[in-house]
Amino acid sequence: RIKASGLKLQLCTNETQATRENFVRKLQALGFDVSVAEVTAPAPAACRLLRERGLRPHLLVHDDLVPEFAEIDKTNPNCVVLGDAAENFTYANLNEAFRLLIGMEKPVLISLGKGRYYKETDGLKLDVGAYMKALEYACDVQAEVVGKPAKGFFESALAELGVPPEQAIMIGDDIVSDVGGAQQCGMRALQVRTGKYRPSDENHPEVRPDAYVNNLAEAVDIILQQL
Amino acid sequence: RIKASGLKLQLCTNETQATRENFVRKLQALGFDVSVAEVTAPAPAACRLLRERGLRPHLLVHDDLVPEFAEIDKTNPNCVVLGDAAENFTYANLNEAFRLLIGMEKPVLISLGKGRYYKETDGLKLDVGAYMKALEYACDVQAEVVGKPAKGFFESALAELGVPPEQAIMIGDDIVSDVGGAQQCGMRALQVRTGKYRPSDENHPEVRPDAYVNNLAEAVDIILQQL
Repeated sequence: RIKASGLKLQLCTNETQATRENFVRKLQALGFDVSVAEVTAPAPAACRLLRERGLRPHLLVHDDLVPEFAEIDKTNPNCVVLGDAAENFTYANLNEAFRLLIGMEKPVLISLGKGRYYKETDGLKLDVGAYMKALEYACDVQAEVVGKPAKGFFESALAELGVPPEQAIMIGDDIVSDVGGAQQCGMRALQVRTGKYRPSDENHPEVRPDAYVNNLAEAVDIILQQL
Repeated sequence: RIKASGLKLQLCTNETQATRENFVRKLQALGFDVSVAEVTAPAPAACRLLRERGLRPHLLVHDDLVPEFAEIDKTNPNCVVLGDAAENFTYANLNEAFRLLIGMEKPVLISLGKGRYYKETDGLKLDVGAYMKALEYACDVQAEVVGKPAKGFFESALAELGVPPEQAIMIGDDIVSDVGGAQQCGMRALQVRTGKYRPSDENHPEVRPDAYVNNLAEAVDIILQQL
């Protein structure tokens, strides 16, 4: 309905356990008409940053994410890119990433998100943010976080759309990463009362959405009514 | 020579990859006349703390350290004790410790030190402090650190000696953990110019030893001269 109305659409995800191709396939299977070009995700944002600064990464990421970095020179690394590596978060791999960082004149750590934990069918798992903190402490360095709520992440989504922030609206369930991040970038933002949403979000000390909607369909209704 | 002079002696170590028994065996093999009772180490200090507060730990520590906790009730854990677990720092073990912590009404994380990294023959390794930071971030909790430079650690060494801080002197190579920690406890402290010592320590912004000595033998000479 959004696309049929002539509005432009971009999906902003912090997914780092799959390529955009796989992510889009899942959405298509659920009936959504979405293409890879309509997805803004941390890995391609990181690739852009790596190219701009001539950085050659050592990757500590999920196996399924590696193809996103296919075009990037990874020889003789001068930075570490950290994603939610899941089973690849081994003692050996963490020590290897650490040794590379501590051996750099000025360690550069790029983290594909800073989530604390997430839930899977077999229970809670430590997310990339926890491992980021471990490496930050060991190397006395601050990671550069790519992904929501980083301002640059929303800016690249807007660049893809070719739309200024004041003409865009963000819809999300995460009060800080989605709503707060988009607003800091000059966009308006709706919070859906589904998914990660918690009633306590409505008393958040720092972030206040421009409006609440009960679900994604209601968000679409409201947006289309304004046209 | 210290013991022959009638002075009391206590060794304060942050070793958490071996029991005191094994630690003492190594020193004895090097010719030092030392007994287990003369060693203050993080694991027994943690055991004291666990007993005092009725805490039942889940252990994420090195296999060789586990015997130190033999007498401690570990059923139905209500805290996590973290040591330098080395090869035991697996993705599965870290998630397990995390799940236990996040499931507690008030998570209690006790860390046997907060070192950032150390060197082994096959290279640098992340130390317990890095994993402590990961769990602290994921659970939004502050770890209680046992071991140097914690004040309580020096206090238990003094209690073992039965000596007030102003009648004790610390000898160590680490400007912060050894010298700073002991001084904050009211003791005097010598820094030896061996081991971890770096010339830059002599310009440390916060800690100033009561004196420098070139090595342990010189420290003994000076102490015995004062008698």
